Amino acid sequence: MSSLAVVGTGLVGASVGLAARGAGIDVVLRDASPEHARRAADLGAGRPPAPDEPPADLVVLAVPPERVAGVLRDAQRAGLGRTYTDVASVKAAVAGEALRLGCDLATYVGGHPMAGRERSGPGAARGDLFVGRPWVLTRGDAGDEHVRRVRALVTACGAVPVEAGAEEHDEAVALVSHVPQVVSSLLAGRLVDAPAAAVALAGQGLRDTTRVAGSDPALWTAILAANARPVRAVLEALRADLDRLLGALGHDDDGVRDALARGVEGRARIPGKHGGTPTTYAAVPVVLRDRPGELARVFLEAALAGVNVEDIAMEHSPGQPVGLVELLVRPEAAGRLADALAAHGWVVHR
Amino acid sequence: MSSLAVVGTGLVGASVGLAARGAGIDVVLRDASPEHARRAADLGAGRPPAPDEPPADLVVLAVPPERVAGVLRDAQRAGLGRTYTDVASVKAAVAGEALRLGCDLATYVGGHPMAGRERSGPGAARGDLFVGRPWVLTRGDAGDEHVRRVRALVTACGAVPVEAGAEEHDEAVALVSHVPQVVSSLLAGRLVDAPAAAVALAGQGLRDTTRVAGSDPALWTAILAANARPVRAVLEALRADLDRLLGALGHDDDGVRDALARGVEGRARIPGKHGGTPTTYAAVPVVLRDRPGELARVFLEAALAGVNVEDIAMEHSPGQPVGLVELLVRPEAAGRLADALAAHGWVVHR
Repeated sequence: MSSLAVVGTGLVGASVGLAARGAGIDVVLRDASPEHARRAADLGAGRPPAPDEPPADLVVLAVPPERVAGVLRDAQRAGLGRTYTDVASVKAAVAGEALRLGCDLATYVGGHPMAGRERSGPGAARGDLFVGRPWVLTRGDAGDEHVRRVRALVTACGAVPVEAGAEEHDEAVALVSHVPQVVSSLLAGRLVDAPAAAVALAGQGLRDTTRVAGSDPALWTAILAANARPVRAVLEALRADLDRLLGALGHDDDGVRDALARGVEGRARIPGKHGGTPTTYAAVPVVLRDRPGELARVFLEAALAGVNVEDIAMEHSPGQPVGLVELLVRPEAAGRLADALAAHGWVVHR
Repeated sequence: MSSLAVVGTGLVGASVGLAARGAGIDVVLRDASPEHARRAADLGAGRPPAPDEPPADLVVLAVPPERVAGVLRDAQRAGLGRTYTDVASVKAAVAGEALRLGCDLATYVGGHPMAGRERSGPGAARGDLFVGRPWVLTRGDAGDEHVRRVRALVTACGAVPVEAGAEEHDEAVALVSHVPQVVSSLLAGRLVDAPAAAVALAGQGLRDTTRVAGSDPALWTAILAANARPVRAVLEALRADLDRLLGALGHDDDGVRDALARGVEGRARIPGKHGGTPTTYAAVPVVLRDRPGELARVFLEAALAGVNVEDIAMEHSPGQPVGLVELLVRPEAAGRLADALAAHGWVVHR
């Protein structure tokens, strides 16, 4: 696979272009808006099509889910490429619509790179948006030759190809992506009419649970519409759990505790930083003055101590320009790091 | 207020002790477990009581909510101090139980420092746990002299005193703390029986919404039991929102979009990093190799460029030891930082 056509040069399309260019693949950019395509080209995501542009090895349809099938049909009629794929976050509905519109399903491999950003548009594109992320492929009726081409793109983007059935994919993303989005939005929605004094007490728990509530409503309305059935199934199960907890609340502490314990158990199943089993890191909390250079000095100290900081958590301190940074490190390195920081004057808590 | 007695030397009690000692206040530590008290003393949170220990100016009852009233009664009978306060995350139930047990409510000021950590116990204590955080005071029947003593402690701990009625407090924390906890736990609970392949697709949205689901079930069962009514009210409103969304899902895109838009609106009400109106930062994404020193070098560069990093977000990259760090800075500084990093060889996305 040495030539790629990207149709739709928003965040994902432009990022695919950037990644492919980085891997030495020739990329042609197309968009209903010539200005978007031009902007993506300026970013280095590819080039405009020549007047007699030959078919690309692979065509990526980076358009919203409800538009994929129509664009696929038009692209296939225009002979834009040998193999076609998309990036929509729902798969069964897209394949079903493609079938209905008479697309050639033998050359279409469903795709869904599981990566994203709060910001959208070509200006937010990044060539490494997909690095290390799962990229699901739902081959459907497509032959091996076509699947291989898409896998080559996935690998060129640094992503991890994961094959699945369309329905299996849709149920999975309903659970791990779509329902968390819905729940976050509903929780945040409760703040609209709340007293300002109440919202002023917000802590990290509220911030974490409502972070994704800032997502684009139009985009998510389309996603939820296309994946309504699997999303409904998870939401109804969640509502049943909520009903059960409401029944226990104030009456049956064991019932409440069980629900909370199940949450602990479920959370423990989420993979750790580099995939695989969740890793338990030790946290080394350091008090920082909020001024330029503090973080730099802390990390310099860590580097000098030969300790790799796996992750950090910064606690927000409303009202005072002081922050607490928790440096997450492998447990065996925690003591060494704490000693090094304390020896250089930081306030470290053990 | 120059002398403090801390009853209950867990995370919060020991942290109060550490903070007070840091402010030059004499602190006496008491705990049902002499070993806990000893450990807290070893950490510098205070000293054991003398055989003829005089009453302290202020007694902080840092025990779980369901035990506050009983401990208050015993502490008052023993004349441990002149003024009494607690740190329980529910207030009306505590005051009600105190009344029922015949406590002297004229010398009791309800308190709730809005700070916390995933870890518990004296070993996790930090003297700056409360810095910049709200600390709610529910004075009830207590006189000004007693409220002043508690406010002095709050200030010594670096916290922001906020007066409220007990019911007002309970409704507020139900909304911004207790219900987010419940929701996070229920969402995470859905993962228990999920296929491993589905959970493997977990992204930042799921991680954020289920982060607090790892909290201690026993502690939260007690909190929810003590604040059942306000929590129920919020959960029922949430369930109604969920029902409304389920009714719209797959049928009424406007209804779905409205719910999502309300989430955006609600989230925007959450205060920014240092309180006040939410701040919009610019994100400067930098690609990092996951090895010692990378973060240090990046922050050093930021410092040399005179740019204060307000916050950072590290994206997890399962499968590859490469990370993307988003440095959040004031918008006017973003270009300068990006230029400085790019000039020193980092891959920066604009």
